[in-house]
Amino acid sequence: MHLDIRDIYKDVKKYMGQEVILQGWIRNHRKQKEFGFISFYDGTYFSNVQLVYDNKLKDFEQIQKLHIGSAITVTGVLVESPKSEQEFEIQVKDIILEGDCPEDYPIQPKQHSREFLREVAYLRPRTNLFQAVFRVRSVAAKAIHDYFQDRGYVYFHAPLITSSDCEGAGEMFQVTTLDLDRIAKSGKVDYSKDFFAKKASLTVSGQLEAETFALAYKKVYTFGPTFRAENSNTKTHANEFWMIEPEMAFCDLDGDMNVMEDMLKYIVKYVLENCKSEIEFFDKFVENGLIEKLTKLANSKFTRITHEEVITILKNADKKWEFEPNYGEDIAKEHEKYITEYFDGPVFITDWPKDIKAFYMKQNPDGKTVAAVDLEVPGAGELMGGSQREEDYQKLIARMKELNMSVEGMEWYLNLRKFGGCTHSGFGMGFERLLIYLTGVENIRDVIPYPRTPGNCDF
Amino acid sequence: MHLDIRDIYKDVKKYMGQEVILQGWIRNHRKQKEFGFISFYDGTYFSNVQLVYDNKLKDFEQIQKLHIGSAITVTGVLVESPKSEQEFEIQVKDIILEGDCPEDYPIQPKQHSREFLREVAYLRPRTNLFQAVFRVRSVAAKAIHDYFQDRGYVYFHAPLITSSDCEGAGEMFQVTTLDLDRIAKSGKVDYSKDFFAKKASLTVSGQLEAETFALAYKKVYTFGPTFRAENSNTKTHANEFWMIEPEMAFCDLDGDMNVMEDMLKYIVKYVLENCKSEIEFFDKFVENGLIEKLTKLANSKFTRITHEEVITILKNADKKWEFEPNYGEDIAKEHEKYITEYFDGPVFITDWPKDIKAFYMKQNPDGKTVAAVDLEVPGAGELMGGSQREEDYQKLIARMKELNMSVEGMEWYLNLRKFGGCTHSGFGMGFERLLIYLTGVENIRDVIPYPRTPGNCDF
Repeated sequence: MHLDIRDIYKDVKKYMGQEVILQGWIRNHRKQKEFGFISFYDGTYFSNVQLVYDNKLKDFEQIQKLHIGSAITVTGVLVESPKSEQEFEIQVKDIILEGDCPEDYPIQPKQHSREFLREVAYLRPRTNLFQAVFRVRSVAAKAIHDYFQDRGYVYFHAPLITSSDCEGAGEMFQVTTLDLDRIAKSGKVDYSKDFFAKKASLTVSGQLEAETFALAYKKVYTFGPTFRAENSNTKTHANEFWMIEPEMAFCDLDGDMNVMEDMLKYIVKYVLENCKSEIEFFDKFVENGLIEKLTKLANSKFTRITHEEVITILKNADKKWEFEPNYGEDIAKEHEKYITEYFDGPVFITDWPKDIKAFYMKQNPDGKTVAAVDLEVPGAGELMGGSQREEDYQKLIARMKELNMSVEGMEWYLNLRKFGGCTHSGFGMGFERLLIYLTGVENIRDVIPYPRTPGNCDF
Repeated sequence: MHLDIRDIYKDVKKYMGQEVILQGWIRNHRKQKEFGFISFYDGTYFSNVQLVYDNKLKDFEQIQKLHIGSAITVTGVLVESPKSEQEFEIQVKDIILEGDCPEDYPIQPKQHSREFLREVAYLRPRTNLFQAVFRVRSVAAKAIHDYFQDRGYVYFHAPLITSSDCEGAGEMFQVTTLDLDRIAKSGKVDYSKDFFAKKASLTVSGQLEAETFALAYKKVYTFGPTFRAENSNTKTHANEFWMIEPEMAFCDLDGDMNVMEDMLKYIVKYVLENCKSEIEFFDKFVENGLIEKLTKLANSKFTRITHEEVITILKNADKKWEFEPNYGEDIAKEHEKYITEYFDGPVFITDWPKDIKAFYMKQNPDGKTVAAVDLEVPGAGELMGGSQREEDYQKLIARMKELNMSVEGMEWYLNLRKFGGCTHSGFGMGFERLLIYLTGVENIRDVIPYPRTPGNCDF
């Protein structure tokens, strides 16, 4: 019977004593005179399976020559393992070599540096570490879809190519079919000849478009790629990344925080339950205490506190700051860390100074702050950011003018405030930030299959 | 108790006689002297809810003035409806106006042309038709994730910005941070100064990268945006669209077809079950016979036949063709239609002439054809295409050279054949093609929230 390793682990007893056929790859191969042991995986389950063969097999000598990395088809019987650390092993009856692997194969059963593995990114999911990382990526994505769909949210595909700039922040990639060499030759740029007959870019956020759908479906979420042409070479920046942007009509900032908290706890619990082996591996080899950290988060109460109150706490702290905390200003990483330690748990910081936040956020009656929120999580820093949206047409236009933003081309967004507008809120979560938190892997390049960073666009 | 309309429809009996609070929008408003009827929706369920109010309410006169499109909060009691076509109605106690809507609101309770609605794409999900279309889009996406994840596939996020060209087909959008005006002035293009220090584009397919993950996880799928800078203004072409690209190791062309058939039937059944009201609406107003078409597909046997056999059938047909069918050549739309009618159901056409198919497809022993497959579906034409991949390193290189393709930069892809390679197969399905089939809506511009087509990049 053809099986995936995953099938067996679901019900080991059922298959005990049965003949099974498995297809996968050799991770390690230990040879003795009369026996051999192959550490075998097929990618459907984190744990390897041990294949045991002996010299009674007529192909014993050929099997002993099998290389690490080779693809094989194994027929064998599931038997109890004499070793306590594994539930079962496979007594081999037959092995067919499907695809050989030369001895200079870059992935050997030893510790490779993550830098080296980035260079062979197309092979790294075959290692234990990355096998675990990218399965968690997949399972966490499923958790997100389940969470929202089970609660009646509509999954909205925001456009990627856009002619508007959500954050007004610049740093966008241009998308064009103009021939650059021809521009160089002719000495002129004619956007009327470009594919969309105007300048177009890759989106930095699907939020503005998501708002249009929230005012039709009440509750929507995006989950798709976004892009920033930011020239930062840090562990937490990539230029192409995936974002989740839920948006809810008839929902204020408190309601927004309820969703943020509930969603995060759901995802964490889901991954703890559905990636048990992977999370245990990370806990052991990547971040000691990971399971405790995640379990604690899933059961913690999230504090809600204003930016102003945070500054007061920071100012009263018996601490020498690298950056002095100030009312009306942004806070630094050291402050974020202090605050989550102070409350011993996740903290929602609300009501931020309007000048350091985006134009679309709801202006508070004090004239100085906006109904924005950042979620600070112990060991992760800022994990999500959200806000109630300005629903007043006049206030929104006034704010855009203050910021020298052009209203042209944004009429559709502004009109949402004219045509049956209502209190609405949303937030954004960078999917890779979440994955860094869930796996303990620190570098964003190691949680994206093929990361794009300045100067790097391989594969 | 605050409820979504969706909650009520899940269990009408439970809420009968209860006071509920609903928030949503006015779709229509009929006023009589002593009564009023508001057709109300909140986007969480396809059917409207009827709000009934009378002149015993102290706000009767204000309520009578409420405009179509306005956002409101309603408090009322769920009562049985005297009309047989609705299960219940709401006897209003109180209505609060959350957001007014002027009388020149573009969406009125009448038939709008789809062309007009494309111009106000940000409002069209508020209409019955598009409310249904984009919910089906969301639910079908969930069906796809459920299908693959429940079967142990890993969801793989392919990179969007790429320096390789999967199909060797050109027609890609260029992605750049070079200043075009400066290029015009300086008269030269220097890609070493571009963001990725080389020429980069938007991907046309994630398949090649998906193959690298299939050889680590056995079974993977992509579900993400892809781009073609094709200058076609047809009903079935958009320049930004979503694709599903599953890829399976240890899987041949027959196994590939098994997944294609099983997945499609699963999605169709899932949507029939979970979008009952929407599909009934499409059946009634968009495509008569839609439910029958979908039900038939879900229960049909898919024929498997070679391209050569298809040509023979076409040649023997008692029909005057616009395009004469020929061995070794592609087939036309009229042929696709004839073949699905001939077999009265979906048809897998396999073993295509290699010269009209992509370089990576497995070369058959005849030297003329490749192990490729197209799925032809009645009423949809070609819905998916797939192939077994060439796993022989030498044959793959030889084919690339024959096609004048550069091997440079593709070593990683070729190496998959060296390092534990194995039989593997996959396919691609355009998500919008599927949606056109599921909804009966004919134009791809009407199943994408914000479609991008030549000259169009609004919102």
